[in-house]
Amino acid sequence: MLVFHSDASLLQNPPTFFRHGRLMPHPETSERYRVLRDAVTGAGHVLHLAPDAGVASIKAVHAPDYVEFLRTAWDRRGELKNVGEELLATQFPRVGMDTRPVGLQGQLGFYLGDTSTSIRGDTWDAAYGAAQAAVALADHVGDAALKGEAATAYALCRPPGHHAYTAYGSGFCYLNNSAIAAQRLREKLGRPVAVLDIDVHHGNGTQGIFYDRADVLTISIHADTSSYFPFYCGYQGETGLGAGEGFNINMPLAHGSGNEVWLAAIRDGLDRVAGFGAAALVVALGLDASEEDPIGALKVTTDGFREAGALIASAGLPTAFVQEGGYLCEALPRNLVAFLSGVGG
Amino acid sequence: MLVFHSDASLLQNPPTFFRHGRLMPHPETSERYRVLRDAVTGAGHVLHLAPDAGVASIKAVHAPDYVEFLRTAWDRRGELKNVGEELLATQFPRVGMDTRPVGLQGQLGFYLGDTSTSIRGDTWDAAYGAAQAAVALADHVGDAALKGEAATAYALCRPPGHHAYTAYGSGFCYLNNSAIAAQRLREKLGRPVAVLDIDVHHGNGTQGIFYDRADVLTISIHADTSSYFPFYCGYQGETGLGAGEGFNINMPLAHGSGNEVWLAAIRDGLDRVAGFGAAALVVALGLDASEEDPIGALKVTTDGFREAGALIASAGLPTAFVQEGGYLCEALPRNLVAFLSGVGG
Repeated sequence: MLVFHSDASLLQNPPTFFRHGRLMPHPETSERYRVLRDAVTGAGHVLHLAPDAGVASIKAVHAPDYVEFLRTAWDRRGELKNVGEELLATQFPRVGMDTRPVGLQGQLGFYLGDTSTSIRGDTWDAAYGAAQAAVALADHVGDAALKGEAATAYALCRPPGHHAYTAYGSGFCYLNNSAIAAQRLREKLGRPVAVLDIDVHHGNGTQGIFYDRADVLTISIHADTSSYFPFYCGYQGETGLGAGEGFNINMPLAHGSGNEVWLAAIRDGLDRVAGFGAAALVVALGLDASEEDPIGALKVTTDGFREAGALIASAGLPTAFVQEGGYLCEALPRNLVAFLSGVGG
Repeated sequence: MLVFHSDASLLQNPPTFFRHGRLMPHPETSERYRVLRDAVTGAGHVLHLAPDAGVASIKAVHAPDYVEFLRTAWDRRGELKNVGEELLATQFPRVGMDTRPVGLQGQLGFYLGDTSTSIRGDTWDAAYGAAQAAVALADHVGDAALKGEAATAYALCRPPGHHAYTAYGSGFCYLNNSAIAAQRLREKLGRPVAVLDIDVHHGNGTQGIFYDRADVLTISIHADTSSYFPFYCGYQGETGLGAGEGFNINMPLAHGSGNEVWLAAIRDGLDRVAGFGAAALVVALGLDASEEDPIGALKVTTDGFREAGALIASAGLPTAFVQEGGYLCEALPRNLVAFLSGVGG
């Protein structure tokens, strides 16, 4: 299978994040990229460095002011005292607070939703590179679809993207690679597309980006968020807004659920995608549903990942697989290889 | 002048808070209480320990579920791994995220708006004690007003309160002591009351609590928030909602403004209070407009504080002074004593 990627995924390597009142080791490191890249090359997949397709596809799903903030925030760090190796938000707007502050400290919370999503000197380059991999993936799958071929390919995006909203990042995510790929496919094919998010965390940013649209179906299968990130969304009652009503589907699973429950949800999701008549599918491919994932909450095995790949391939749609979460553990590379072998091709 | 206080203000003493990606010394310490208490006793004011008037006055302005969270959060810490000396929020709900999560980590961000407002073993006791001081203050001023006397008194509340909203805390604040005093006066007198907030920070929680009400006028004089906490509110366009339209007034001042600008704003504020016909006044008395305050942004001198006290006293209203911010510096105790001497009585 073709694997699109960017060397910039070696950048943005935060040592810590702030949780439970302490600075703790950050799980979203560049080592994830190395491990997954080595795994796919070891399994015989072919790496393609994504070309630079510019910022247009990014701005197709993200607000221009947010993109500008990401690009320039680090260069503005002189506005603040005592800045270390990174910028992190510490205050955040609540409901009813719509005013964008002028200063950097306020903008950090305006554009970043939590204390795990830092701005460092190389954050923009890393996020931009990952987004380019998603664009190259969408172009490959989309161009094939225009020729009548149901191609499948994979983008090794890092940092991940599915927690990034139109106008703010969160949960280690800056640019929503899955949404960028979906929108690019939507534009290229001129027909509706679907996103199936199988990361263990709710794909809240993707939901948010397409929440009022009927032309992109978003489905997320994830560990119940009532006691799990992102906490404040991911519930079944979130079904879309306005024209988008009915085109967002959340499938929260009980913590500790294993292959059977997870694969049944994927089957259900694929049925919804088929009923919707999607011309192409983007799979937000988190690997953190693994039973071994250090921050996971489900119990999916390597066989489960292989079967998930096979199930999705059996839908026969042009399909773009976009790497999302999945954190360092022995099973991480093995589960990616198993998933892609399930997909075949 | 009578000074109401609580020994519980010696509790809730966080060593650090999270800012700019680092843990930094916390400015809102119990030493503030000691210094201010010593200052008022040294100046001959009379300390009165506030009696326990129960939780009713707290629940008159705060949501029951938020109060219950504050009371019980620390006892629930076993829900989380790796808890240290305190609980702090790291993820936060945004616009459109109304679902209250079940688990403690999500509830921390649901009920606390930033990373500076920790829950420790003694947080509830400290906040409860400060609120009782505000209640005792309101009872004293209100009972005198019912006898036709325009009494003035002061509550040495700590932790402060004016950044606490109906259903969440923020900015070192848990229970909104000024709002509790205002509501208690409102109920006791059966007539409209006003809050004049002269802390250097916008009194956003107080604004929020009374935002849709016409019976409590809220005025905040503060350093421009476009590059200063609380960042996302405190602007002139925030004038109230529904029945409360026109009954919230924000007076943001340019950073670096001194006595002249600050006192002119206070005069303006007092004119609005008089025009409103308030039966009593609550002054949210931050001392952090001082030129020496370590986290301040204005340049008010000790003479400025004395004159502010005299100006407010000249309005001739029953007036409850509630301590808000003001951080450790040589001028802190001096400015409180000067302010109260300006008030006289």
